[in-house]
Amino acid sequence: MNDSATPAYDALERACCRMHRLGHLQALAYWDQAVNMPPKGNEARAAAMAELAALLHRQRTAPAFGQRIAEAEQEPLSVLQRANLREIRRRWDADTALPEALVERRTLAAARCEHAWRTQRAANDWDGFAPNFREVVAIAREQAALLAQRQGVPRYEALVQEYEPGLRCSTIDRIFGDLRRWLPALIQAVVERQRGQSVIAPVGPFPLPAQRALSERVMRLLGFDFDAGRLDVSAHPFCGGTPEDVRLTTRFAEDDFLGALMGTAHETGHARYEQKLPRAWLQQPLGMARSMAIHESQSLAFEMQLGAHPGFVALLAPLLAQAFGSQPAFEPSNLQRLLTRVTPGFIRIEADEVTYPAHVIVRYEIERALIEGEIEVDDVPALWDAKMMELLGVDTRGNHRDGAMQDVHWAEGIFGYFPCYTLGAMYAAQWFAAMRDGTPDLDARIAAGDLAPVFEWLEARIWSQGSRWSTDELAERASGRVLDPAHFREHLQRRYLG
Amino acid sequence: MNDSATPAYDALERACCRMHRLGHLQALAYWDQAVNMPPKGNEARAAAMAELAALLHRQRTAPAFGQRIAEAEQEPLSVLQRANLREIRRRWDADTALPEALVERRTLAAARCEHAWRTQRAANDWDGFAPNFREVVAIAREQAALLAQRQGVPRYEALVQEYEPGLRCSTIDRIFGDLRRWLPALIQAVVERQRGQSVIAPVGPFPLPAQRALSERVMRLLGFDFDAGRLDVSAHPFCGGTPEDVRLTTRFAEDDFLGALMGTAHETGHARYEQKLPRAWLQQPLGMARSMAIHESQSLAFEMQLGAHPGFVALLAPLLAQAFGSQPAFEPSNLQRLLTRVTPGFIRIEADEVTYPAHVIVRYEIERALIEGEIEVDDVPALWDAKMMELLGVDTRGNHRDGAMQDVHWAEGIFGYFPCYTLGAMYAAQWFAAMRDGTPDLDARIAAGDLAPVFEWLEARIWSQGSRWSTDELAERASGRVLDPAHFREHLQRRYLG
Repeated sequence: MNDSATPAYDALERACCRMHRLGHLQALAYWDQAVNMPPKGNEARAAAMAELAALLHRQRTAPAFGQRIAEAEQEPLSVLQRANLREIRRRWDADTALPEALVERRTLAAARCEHAWRTQRAANDWDGFAPNFREVVAIAREQAALLAQRQGVPRYEALVQEYEPGLRCSTIDRIFGDLRRWLPALIQAVVERQRGQSVIAPVGPFPLPAQRALSERVMRLLGFDFDAGRLDVSAHPFCGGTPEDVRLTTRFAEDDFLGALMGTAHETGHARYEQKLPRAWLQQPLGMARSMAIHESQSLAFEMQLGAHPGFVALLAPLLAQAFGSQPAFEPSNLQRLLTRVTPGFIRIEADEVTYPAHVIVRYEIERALIEGEIEVDDVPALWDAKMMELLGVDTRGNHRDGAMQDVHWAEGIFGYFPCYTLGAMYAAQWFAAMRDGTPDLDARIAAGDLAPVFEWLEARIWSQGSRWSTDELAERASGRVLDPAHFREHLQRRYLG
Repeated sequence: MNDSATPAYDALERACCRMHRLGHLQALAYWDQAVNMPPKGNEARAAAMAELAALLHRQRTAPAFGQRIAEAEQEPLSVLQRANLREIRRRWDADTALPEALVERRTLAAARCEHAWRTQRAANDWDGFAPNFREVVAIAREQAALLAQRQGVPRYEALVQEYEPGLRCSTIDRIFGDLRRWLPALIQAVVERQRGQSVIAPVGPFPLPAQRALSERVMRLLGFDFDAGRLDVSAHPFCGGTPEDVRLTTRFAEDDFLGALMGTAHETGHARYEQKLPRAWLQQPLGMARSMAIHESQSLAFEMQLGAHPGFVALLAPLLAQAFGSQPAFEPSNLQRLLTRVTPGFIRIEADEVTYPAHVIVRYEIERALIEGEIEVDDVPALWDAKMMELLGVDTRGNHRDGAMQDVHWAEGIFGYFPCYTLGAMYAAQWFAAMRDGTPDLDARIAAGDLAPVFEWLEARIWSQGSRWSTDELAERASGRVLDPAHFREHLQRRYLG
């Protein structure tokens, strides 16, 4: 006997909890594949992951589950339950648009392509990569067409919904169109201004154990809880695992520690969001992070807003000397110049915050056209070359490893994610503007080593909110308005031309 | 339409393949829990593992699956298919004896007990351990009662079947009864004989990175395939993962390298068995290792038969000097004395091969009485003390961490396994006796660094056979007879009193 007034909703919560638990294993298998798995393990791993993905897909799309959602929508729910149900409904609508066989093929194709990519990228082997990638794209197009039909939106926009629900391509176009107008000139102006600046480069080598200890030290400074997570090494850094056990990865190079260190700061922003999601709701969709643009706003709040903040740089300087011994490059004002050095380059994840949006625009324009069927995989290298030259003035011809093959996203069949990085940078700027409104001495407190105001603001307004609100509502409640890219432009102008 | 003459059998193979894939994730989650997982991740991990265990149990016990087995038994199968079906039937009979709720409770209780044990053991905290362990024992008794009823055998014997199908308690009693008669005197005689022997102890510290490199070097010497497996560190060494991706663990101590090194050799024996199971059958029960006594016969063939073989020791000596620098202790004849030093002690996994069976007898007698309900958890420490004194002459009173809490098995609810270690040692002696019959210059070839005859014999007769035969059949086909403990006694007498 069930005496509850909300039997259907209760059943949904139980089902979500079961799926959350299986999702835990999925996250673990993904992390292990990137961090630990030896090469001969890949085939069995891919098969196991496809099996679990199909099983989860069956659970998520079971007709009884949909029936329960419809019933629960008629039940007397609390405000939080109703928000949870909204998220359950949103996922159901997306999941039932895709047949199980497609989900299974997608998982297999992505695993195969990603695994081969690891060696193909190093070998600059576009011709080896292209056949696997064509398969990944073909499946993504099928997926996009099905989702688009269901949602009544364009195909690429339908994929974007998976990462940033409610985001319209018209919004991206408006924001990126605006960016395209002022960014190249701003890059030029900053490069010009920095041309005369003398910057002392750190002198390596930087031994990996010392780098690792430094990364962990900075993660602690940034509040990462090592009793609920780890730092490991993978080819493409990411933040994985589960909110209870967050698995960060980075990659170290002996001749450069700043890339790994700031990459770790970036992933730590993701990690803290996950570690501080509302505990009581962790097993429900309501307890999950709002969206990927909001997620990236956390990573970029940590890496860029905080990481290159003069106050934070002053905290960092002695840690570097401790890790590698003193050297002139670690003097705070020089370190500040290093961390805000603007150099148009090939690699997105090594890009400074000024040129970064240009990398994103290149990917957005290509992947959107690819999904909409306006171009084919074979067109990608030439388009890449042209757009990189146009937006950043760099010549990428023949250099696939530092070109279209540099990111793991496409190899894994992730299309529609890239815009989130730049929207995240814009949100991060907006969060810091709002923090300064509420805490006028914010910059002085950061400089004094007191990061609590930053963490408290983010925890109260973003982390603890999970998926309680839509992205627009979340932004309004947190900062008084929906996304306003003007904060980002002001931030860049103040930091780089001020 | 299915044109196959064996539609039911085909469906069983497909179902087994799906379960094998989910089992892959189970093995990974277990390994990660022991090797990587931070403490706050445990609750969510335990819940996820229980969810998957329950799901697999539902699949393994689905009425349709049982129906298919009955149908397949009437189908025209090949010899190999019939052997596979025999294994499927055996597992089905065991699995359907247990209700899903029991399986789930068992997984949860074991995870809780094992996790707490990690710190409780270090703290010698029997009182903290006992309540968790009582719960584990209570569930194991329920399980044993259900299995015993189904199989018509005594309760403890019913648990043994999970690890060594077909093994009777009467056989264990006969073999261990015989051992009990001659082993204490043999231990005494060896200790007496070694009393006058001078042995030089290695002088540490032995840096962990050098130990790790040495372990990997020896694993390569023993044929481990690092493209299909890894070596990591955990509190209790084990060989986990899957045949395609074997995850070995060891534990290092700075003041002693031999324990970790020989432990690694032990696990490498398990690992090679897994890595060389028949590829074509890996996703089916037929492709799995025969049993745990046979598995331990591989680990002990590597650790004891080969590991302390004078020819192998001569190969090892230069590797030690390379790892830690030359020292008198690494001279081959001294090393040989070190590796064959017999010392009655507390710890099973550190025991030499002469005293090891005494440790097993202690555990066998206690766990059997515990499962049969003849004793309770609170009786264990006193019984432990009495039996250790009787068989090994060592005083364990008050020392729970080196007493009944030393092994992970009981914490994890594993009862019925321990006899497999000593039966495995006996099988290993029997394999080497058979190898010497077929290859009279075996010892000379090992001494010349040629381990191929050993690996080839094991691969052809054991590893590649999977679960093709019953243990008795396997032993007969491999060595001309079922288990004959006389080989083990002869081996000990030759090596230690010869």
